[in-house]
Amino acid sequence: MIAILKRGTSAQQAQHLIDWLKNMNLDVHVSTGTEITVLGLIGDTSRVDMELLSSLEIVDSVKRVSEPYKQANRKFHPNDSVIQAGQVSIGGGNFALIAGPCSVECEEQIIEVAQSVKKSGANILRGGAFKPRTSPYAFQGLKAEGIRLLLEAKKATGLPIITEIMDIRTLDLFEDVDIIQVGARNMQNFDLLQELGSTNKPILLKRGLANTIQELLMSAEYIMSRGNENIILCERGIRTYETATRNTLDLSAVPVLHELTHLPVVVDPSHATGRVSLVPPMAAAAAACGADGIMVEVHNNPSCALCDGAQSLTPVQFDEVAAKVRRIREAIS
Amino acid sequence: MIAILKRGTSAQQAQHLIDWLKNMNLDVHVSTGTEITVLGLIGDTSRVDMELLSSLEIVDSVKRVSEPYKQANRKFHPNDSVIQAGQVSIGGGNFALIAGPCSVECEEQIIEVAQSVKKSGANILRGGAFKPRTSPYAFQGLKAEGIRLLLEAKKATGLPIITEIMDIRTLDLFEDVDIIQVGARNMQNFDLLQELGSTNKPILLKRGLANTIQELLMSAEYIMSRGNENIILCERGIRTYETATRNTLDLSAVPVLHELTHLPVVVDPSHATGRVSLVPPMAAAAAACGADGIMVEVHNNPSCALCDGAQSLTPVQFDEVAAKVRRIREAIS
Amino acid sequence: MIAILKRGTSAQQAQHLIDWLKNMNLDVHVSTGTEITVLGLIGDTSRVDMELLSSLEIVDSVKRVSEPYKQANRKFHPNDSVIQAGQVSIGGGNFALIAGPCSVECEEQIIEVAQSVKKSGANILRGGAFKPRTSPYAFQGLKAEGIRLLLEAKKATGLPIITEIMDIRTLDLFEDVDIIQVGARNMQNFDLLQELGSTNKPILLKRGLANTIQELLMSAEYIMSRGNENIILCERGIRTYETATRNTLDLSAVPVLHELTHLPVVVDPSHATGRVSLVPPMAAAAAACGADGIMVEVHNNPSCALCDGAQSLTPVQFDEVAAKVRRIREAIS
Amino acid sequence: MIAILKRGTSAQQAQHLIDWLKNMNLDVHVSTGTEITVLGLIGDTSRVDMELLSSLEIVDSVKRVSEPYKQANRKFHPNDSVIQAGQVSIGGGNFALIAGPCSVECEEQIIEVAQSVKKSGANILRGGAFKPRTSPYAFQGLKAEGIRLLLEAKKATGLPIITEIMDIRTLDLFEDVDIIQVGARNMQNFDLLQELGSTNKPILLKRGLANTIQELLMSAEYIMSRGNENIILCERGIRTYETATRNTLDLSAVPVLHELTHLPVVVDPSHATGRVSLVPPMAAAAAACGADGIMVEVHNNPSCALCDGAQSLTPVQFDEVAAKVRRIREAIS
Repeated sequence: MIAILKRGTSAQQAQHLIDWLKNMNLDVHVSTGTEITVLGLIGDTSRVDMELLSSLEIVDSVKRVSEPYKQANRKFHPNDSVIQAGQVSIGGGNFALIAGPCSVECEEQIIEVAQSVKKSGANILRGGAFKPRTSPYAFQGLKAEGIRLLLEAKKATGLPIITEIMDIRTLDLFEDVDIIQVGARNMQNFDLLQELGSTNKPILLKRGLANTIQELLMSAEYIMSRGNENIILCERGIRTYETATRNTLDLSAVPVLHELTHLPVVVDPSHATGRVSLVPPMAAAAAACGADGIMVEVHNNPSCALCDGAQSLTPVQFDEVAAKVRRIREAIS
Repeated sequence: MIAILKRGTSAQQAQHLIDWLKNMNLDVHVSTGTEITVLGLIGDTSRVDMELLSSLEIVDSVKRVSEPYKQANRKFHPNDSVIQAGQVSIGGGNFALIAGPCSVECEEQIIEVAQSVKKSGANILRGGAFKPRTSPYAFQGLKAEGIRLLLEAKKATGLPIITEIMDIRTLDLFEDVDIIQVGARNMQNFDLLQELGSTNKPILLKRGLANTIQELLMSAEYIMSRGNENIILCERGIRTYETATRNTLDLSAVPVLHELTHLPVVVDPSHATGRVSLVPPMAAAAAACGADGIMVEVHNNPSCALCDGAQSLTPVQFDEVAAKVRRIREAIS
Repeated sequence: MIAILKRGTSAQQAQHLIDWLKNMNLDVHVSTGTEITVLGLIGDTSRVDMELLSSLEIVDSVKRVSEPYKQANRKFHPNDSVIQAGQVSIGGGNFALIAGPCSVECEEQIIEVAQSVKKSGANILRGGAFKPRTSPYAFQGLKAEGIRLLLEAKKATGLPIITEIMDIRTLDLFEDVDIIQVGARNMQNFDLLQELGSTNKPILLKRGLANTIQELLMSAEYIMSRGNENIILCERGIRTYETATRNTLDLSAVPVLHELTHLPVVVDPSHATGRVSLVPPMAAAAAACGADGIMVEVHNNPSCALCDGAQSLTPVQFDEVAAKVRRIREAIS
Repeated sequence: MIAILKRGTSAQQAQHLIDWLKNMNLDVHVSTGTEITVLGLIGDTSRVDMELLSSLEIVDSVKRVSEPYKQANRKFHPNDSVIQAGQVSIGGGNFALIAGPCSVECEEQIIEVAQSVKKSGANILRGGAFKPRTSPYAFQGLKAEGIRLLLEAKKATGLPIITEIMDIRTLDLFEDVDIIQVGARNMQNFDLLQELGSTNKPILLKRGLANTIQELLMSAEYIMSRGNENIILCERGIRTYETATRNTLDLSAVPVLHELTHLPVVVDPSHATGRVSLVPPMAAAAAACGADGIMVEVHNNPSCALCDGAQSLTPVQFDEVAAKVRRIREAIS
């Protein structure tokens, strides 16, 4: 970590700061130029509060040279992590094709969709049981019953399942769930992250709507610092000024994350774009830039309700997406 | 709620949708023009999933005419709400001057700051006990001990206290806290909001980093829908591309919220700007545009550590801010 | 166009507005519900100032049903436009592989790069002669001399050339340039757009840093409304809060634009990401989601200077990108 | 300027870079730590292309210690600049109360508004003659005739006038205009800026929709570097994800700019918010945080058309705003 002191900092002020830093078990390498003084901090700087340091009156700016995350950092773990969800491997060349309905609605629905997407090549089944909704008056999901139905679909198809947790007090319900999803709104629910860090479940961690790539990695670090290294990162669109799509899918995050971390990265084009017609091209683009998987919403027609017509592909559309993704993965390999 | 159907929608498709809407106990008023068809939905549309509806293939767009929040809505509650925190009233012309250190660090610190800010006119004491930190390796606050020290300061000065909750499982610790703060990162932690809705504690709800004003009101609605109407909203800066300030303080949110809701609105210029020198002018601006209070960080010198030098005013600086805010409030009254 | 009137609008106020709209040669279809009144405006609504209309006191909101652009609109021109630049076709299945240095620096440089990228499959040569620079003290390009050197490279290789115009007063210099580029900062320089609309040159119009997709189309419309329909749109990253990349490449804009307009869409991953290592994956992703071309910066080693090391690929790297893009285009066809 | 080299940079690579920097007439101070190497660049670094430097493969990051603007920099010009527009001074304690209609529409309108706002205390008259419009089909202003009418109003009231230039080729028309406005969309139209730098007219430079505070200062520097130091900066809202207001008024920019530059800063709450009801509170907030002026839209009733009902205050509303701003300025003085 480098701290640049402002012009006009007195020797005494600088020394005060240096002493404080040394108290934190850091070595401080001082370089005094004609105009400015640069402090090089050596040691475990992950405990240094960068925002605090940079807001001190005598400090012009602070620059991390080493990243603040360790266990998620590719520098200390050069090989791709491969996460195991049931029989399915994710990362290190293994592609996760995750598909299923937005919400679990009834047994018939979830089993039909599961069988259909499996046939098209999906290797993991998704489905919402606990649904985070902006409005307290909107449907909040089938909750425990939704998880039960997902487990039925798992039994029927053999597909491992992924579903979202919202409240740590419901953790027991996820015992047979293969991957626990942390939604975008909970990406910085640190207590939830720490509790999940004490399990050994694979966690799919979605990037928050307005969170940076580094903050996503710091949230992964929260989980890993408690011992659970089974993390899959998920890019699902960020909030920008553009309104033509629900969010702006930041696909550059895929290669950026691959440089910074060994964890696998999947992409959710359904939630990012919010429109069926954009899912196939963005799924293809995700595969082309090296994503380790995609997660898409698929619904089977009107067996349950109009309710999943939203951003979901039909089984036929999904079949085409799956085939195209396979061809692209061959083209880039 | 208005739903505009796409050109080319068949009569049968339109009827299918109308039937579905009527099943939700809505009256549907159909207006067919030469080019498009407009459906007017009448009844309790707060249960209608607008995102779903607008994503249906035949729907061009959906427009709410009535807001999706009810209890927070000024239309149904024209008079300003006045929230009571101990002896202090907030809203409806009553100004909350909330001050205190970023983190509670030791008894001497919190009591000294409390006495000092009280003398300058502060009527509520703030202090962090549970600290949400981006990094798992950073100081997370004194936790239960921090709340104990805040209560000591309350006893010593008579000031009501406000501090942040991060995990609903710690709610018992907040029994004697006067106002519970929900931080920006938890603004859409819906399970937390619902639990707080079952208490009768005043809640200060901070706007999330990338949340709209309407989403803030929907989160207030989550709390209110469970029965707790004692809510104070807080603007604390939003995330934009600008890097000269930590966040961009959206002061227009103050008059916008005053139009939309009866709940009081306070402004936190310390976290929004992240720089001491910007706190006084932005505190003044907040008062000038009609905020019902401000919340600022104040530290007493080096009794504990260098650690709170950050975005905090000194007691002397705070005294000047408090005086200026009083003069501005007189000027606009 | 639909205008929704606020509750409480008097019949007289509504009539005043209706008369005003009729004066603009619009038919107005009034639909009065129990709570609100909806006006359907029929006729040439492209002249209606939507912002003005929606800001009137009695108007709740305004919604366009038909897009405000006509000549760029796919509805009125269902087939893809194919733009001709010299012998090269762009759009409608014809892919533009545009490559070259950031700045033209000397004859040797531009000719070497041109020969090299041609060999790798590029069909258009790019190079900056007039350089928009944030700082008045930075190198502003070789200007007229830069264009002269590009024309030398065109002569040597047969490749059509593209370069940026900044000031309409220099238009004469572009007589033999094959495609004139309008940079992101000039996307809403309306006088420049109109002048270019009076030429018959192909124009590559870059999306502004903070401009919506609709604004991009309106700027294309500015050019087309003067008679020049030879427009290529270019996505080059938008400004967001994320700092890991220079801008956020909004690849969803590619399929969105393909739905809305018949004009070809190319992607510039070099400027969007600002980092060499991200150009290959994002070029691949652009091809996968259906872009009609990519534009990438390529430099030949140190023959001129260190100065183009930036976001530019080496010829060898470009050769790999070109091959991968070809394979992906086959995979998705 | 500080350049931090990546770990693993060879001595030869570092030397190559150092030689290149020295060739630019910079002294380079090398500080080699155990992990990283820091280069301190001393001399005129305003010519160094920071984006280029930071994108070099061996460079981890670059940090300016001195700002890239000189003439706009408060460090080299500690006292506030006072800009003279006719008899009116702006800056250094002199407040500009700029008011007038969005567009000049007819002689009666502009003269009536001018007389009215003068009576309320306005000291500068604004009015649009050339109007930048997103759509080529929308009203583009009265152009030369609009300027003629503004000059009539100036003659009638003695108020200096401000109006926007869009195309440098129309500069002659602005001979008797007191302040030339550069609109947000042209903030980085560098050729326009340079031409205006060759005049001695006061320039009101509006911040672009997605431009940083530093970019605004660099654009001021473009004008100043050609000799014209009569610049007034204007904050008018930035583009964010929030849709409750047209743009997000970034009032923190006022004190930030006051720290960085000696140039006066005015605020335009009309365009920023787009809603009449928000103009009074935001005008008050602008005054409270130290703005050197405000610019607001005022229309006289329906003498000409419905057309300026938009974000404009009535004369009566403006009179109240003017009075409140005066009281706030007294309160903070």
